[in-house]
Amino acid sequence: MDSVSYSALTPLSFLERSARVWPDKTAVIYQRRRLTYSGLADEVSRVARALRAAGVEPGDRVAYLMPNLPEMLIAHFAVPLAGGVLVAVNTRLVADEMSYILRHSGAKLLIADAALLPTAVAAAKDLDTVLRLVVAEDAEIEPSGPMDTDPPGAALAADPRLVSYPDFLAQAAEDPLPWAVAEELAPLAINYTSGTTGMPKGVIYTHRGAYLNSFAQIVHSRHDENSVYLWTLPMFHCNGWCMPWALTAIGGTHVCLREVRGDAIWAQLRAHDVTHLNAAPTVVTSILNADEAGPLTRPVLITTAGAPPSPTTIAHMERMGFTIVHVYGLTETYGPISLGQFQPEWADLTADQRAVLQARQGVDLIPAGKLRVVDASMADVPADGLTMGEIVMRGNTVMAGYYRDPEATAEAFRGGWFHSGDLGVMHPDGYIELRDRAKDIVISGGENISTIEVEQALMSHPDVLETAVVGVPDDKWGERPKAFVVLRPGASASPEDLMAHVRTKIARYKAPRDIDITVQLPKTPTGKIQKFMLRNAEWAGHTNRVHG
Amino acid sequence: MDSVSYSALTPLSFLERSARVWPDKTAVIYQRRRLTYSGLADEVSRVARALRAAGVEPGDRVAYLMPNLPEMLIAHFAVPLAGGVLVAVNTRLVADEMSYILRHSGAKLLIADAALLPTAVAAAKDLDTVLRLVVAEDAEIEPSGPMDTDPPGAALAADPRLVSYPDFLAQAAEDPLPWAVAEELAPLAINYTSGTTGMPKGVIYTHRGAYLNSFAQIVHSRHDENSVYLWTLPMFHCNGWCMPWALTAIGGTHVCLREVRGDAIWAQLRAHDVTHLNAAPTVVTSILNADEAGPLTRPVLITTAGAPPSPTTIAHMERMGFTIVHVYGLTETYGPISLGQFQPEWADLTADQRAVLQARQGVDLIPAGKLRVVDASMADVPADGLTMGEIVMRGNTVMAGYYRDPEATAEAFRGGWFHSGDLGVMHPDGYIELRDRAKDIVISGGENISTIEVEQALMSHPDVLETAVVGVPDDKWGERPKAFVVLRPGASASPEDLMAHVRTKIARYKAPRDIDITVQLPKTPTGKIQKFMLRNAEWAGHTNRVHG
Repeated sequence: MDSVSYSALTPLSFLERSARVWPDKTAVIYQRRRLTYSGLADEVSRVARALRAAGVEPGDRVAYLMPNLPEMLIAHFAVPLAGGVLVAVNTRLVADEMSYILRHSGAKLLIADAALLPTAVAAAKDLDTVLRLVVAEDAEIEPSGPMDTDPPGAALAADPRLVSYPDFLAQAAEDPLPWAVAEELAPLAINYTSGTTGMPKGVIYTHRGAYLNSFAQIVHSRHDENSVYLWTLPMFHCNGWCMPWALTAIGGTHVCLREVRGDAIWAQLRAHDVTHLNAAPTVVTSILNADEAGPLTRPVLITTAGAPPSPTTIAHMERMGFTIVHVYGLTETYGPISLGQFQPEWADLTADQRAVLQARQGVDLIPAGKLRVVDASMADVPADGLTMGEIVMRGNTVMAGYYRDPEATAEAFRGGWFHSGDLGVMHPDGYIELRDRAKDIVISGGENISTIEVEQALMSHPDVLETAVVGVPDDKWGERPKAFVVLRPGASASPEDLMAHVRTKIARYKAPRDIDITVQLPKTPTGKIQKFMLRNAEWAGHTNRVHG
Repeated sequence: MDSVSYSALTPLSFLERSARVWPDKTAVIYQRRRLTYSGLADEVSRVARALRAAGVEPGDRVAYLMPNLPEMLIAHFAVPLAGGVLVAVNTRLVADEMSYILRHSGAKLLIADAALLPTAVAAAKDLDTVLRLVVAEDAEIEPSGPMDTDPPGAALAADPRLVSYPDFLAQAAEDPLPWAVAEELAPLAINYTSGTTGMPKGVIYTHRGAYLNSFAQIVHSRHDENSVYLWTLPMFHCNGWCMPWALTAIGGTHVCLREVRGDAIWAQLRAHDVTHLNAAPTVVTSILNADEAGPLTRPVLITTAGAPPSPTTIAHMERMGFTIVHVYGLTETYGPISLGQFQPEWADLTADQRAVLQARQGVDLIPAGKLRVVDASMADVPADGLTMGEIVMRGNTVMAGYYRDPEATAEAFRGGWFHSGDLGVMHPDGYIELRDRAKDIVISGGENISTIEVEQALMSHPDVLETAVVGVPDDKWGERPKAFVVLRPGASASPEDLMAHVRTKIARYKAPRDIDITVQLPKTPTGKIQKFMLRNAEWAGHTNRVHG
């Protein structure tokens, strides 16, 4: 509990301070909209009071389904200010997947962007735990932009829990709420991620962990009050690596963005003299290949995770004025936990030599957790750059656990370290490098896809006897899932039939574009499917280091 | 206790990490000496193991009496690594004052620079709590430099507890110690400071507080691994504002310095392309007025505390390539807790207008504590820039308390806030500004001098009947103590007699250079001395804001 010499670490304190220190500074830019820091704090306070009025009590979960709009940023402060726990849901999920998350988290409220309303309504349909469904219209939406949805009118009429965002806000009580939390280890957010099991798991972030990881982001990206940060990384992904909190702490400017497209990114880079963005490698590729690409007037630091960029990409980007930093982490580590820290003496190497060193996942951020590469008995593997082991982590920026899943938590935390499921090596200089993934996970465009989840979707088709899904190389997304299917005797489903079926079960980005119907799958003598044989055949000739 | 998701915050983790991430990078420069980060960690580990071998057990205090040498920097990690608590003693104190600190802290060891050995031996003479007195010779000392001391040989022979630093190190055990602490709220250091009572009080810093304040220093001074920090601020003063820990965390380079003189500072600035230094205003003046002063090749950020620099000084320094940042804090707040944060719109003001705004003590650092200006009932004064109140603080970078002094701690923490004793105003923009000091303290050259302590030294002369000491303006030191003395009837001591007496009792820098023998002191009808009347007369015509 707080005393003269102790106050619970919480990102709420960041906005409280910035609203005092930078009241008139631009906190948020979104199209024609602007919010100053005092305006942002006022809006956050209003939303928090509205959440309270809507019945949110300390510890209650509040789900958001929204692209990177100001309301999504506001949610990162308003939900904890109301005492709640933010559940930011991946906007690309299908209704059944969202429904699972809403049910598992027990979210009392779902606040959704109007463009996503049909999915939201379908997801919440059979859940009486969801008391209200708040729908936010985006006044800044481009009239010509893609709107692959029906107008919200019909859905609004259909569900009595629906309420418009302005009506929701109008209920806000008057009493201000304190920018503080009683316990710094209290949950702040739950982020659902696909793991080795088919069902997504709820990764719990604490106030303390997010506070400390915010400083990691500030220090390693060298943010200051002059930072102009473009929101290309989804806020629903690891809470945007804690950047909603970190950039607010330092008093920078958030540039919100609905559509993560090359042309839209370039327009924002130039309109607002952006200094920083974080993005999956696929977004980096979009930026590079956009028709609008060209020299920058102000240098931009791009932090990317997942697959390291190629030397060609790095060189190309640097000529335009970008600097690329490569980081590594998981949802379970609040986003990045390590970075490919550049060493001064690397400046003397050739671009190719440098790229090899920079492609490594590197060393732990400060303040963050620690990383080791261990063998099955939890002993460190030799730091020889050759011996494979599992990457394990520990520290203040490792999740508190999986929500309502003590078994999975205990399994992930066995031996006193968090098991990433990633296989890697430790180099003699203390840098780690990923080599393969122990978990059955495909990372496509920065998002985890559980191969087991895809397999289960395929198995639910009556014609499928058995199946194996592996990640295969993809020029745009890094990798994508590919399915190998053995049909039941006499069955005749085509790959197209199976794809259509799968897309009713899981999000489009998870569904395999390639399905090979085959007569048998490679197996061990004991009958276990040997996925690595399928993977190796697909990756032959590719140099992606993660699968090298 | 540590778990997968929790590790106790401690500055020890900073060096552990930097030794891994930057093993070959220069951590310390001192004259011809160099230490890499791995070399620094090795040396720290050796000293810690030697401390253990010398009998230091968890929680034991270890005193250091040393200028800003590498060994003093090493102490900031080695003492806590050994489980001990660092007591860094002001090198300008006289033996009696040091003796008080050694006795009060119960320090088991005293490690002293050879040049300070006679004082150290005298201070420890009657204390059997001090088990050993380790004397460190400085191999880099300039042969022509001032050595106002006897060679250590004689003293070495005199005290059987004396041991040379190499002999002390030779006892180091083999077992490595973990770079961790069991409890983040455990004491890390005790800094003795003069308060309202005559005797110095031991301000307790915790691992958590120092860890968090280190990030405050990194973020607000924009440190990164390219930082080259010149050690002008004494490490014995608030542990150098936590910079031994902060700069090590970020992997910068420490430039050590024995003598804080203008010529020595300019030589180091130029030899090592220094980027940052922290200094009291008097040191800023020395830099400015040195014969060697001239344009810098690399910009230097100076952070200064105490009195804000004048517009003339700021303009002069900026022309040479310095940027000056003004901060405020106390020993009780781990050094700086606020800064005169520059606002972008100030760039459009005249230099004089800007200086007025920048001279204010400003807003709280992140991550740090909070500041308020309150009236006697602990209510906030109006934010009108006019209404005076006491500046109070609260948060993670407020001391844990005064060592072995629950009464003074309770008094300082009354009402749930730390009472700074400083009087100030709150401006409408949320910036605080000091106006006067409630405590009987003179700040001279950045060091606190208790007027009561000076008065007690004077009162110990048999001819003195009563006395009052106040701070008066001083061009070099900002202010200095001045004494008004009423002699006993028939007594005839001269000001010179009294000065000579005082200098046997307290450090030279605390002793008044001016003593007015007078027939009476201004008093209230109830007999209380009205120091403000003496002060006002002395400050007439001066514009120093603290005393304005």
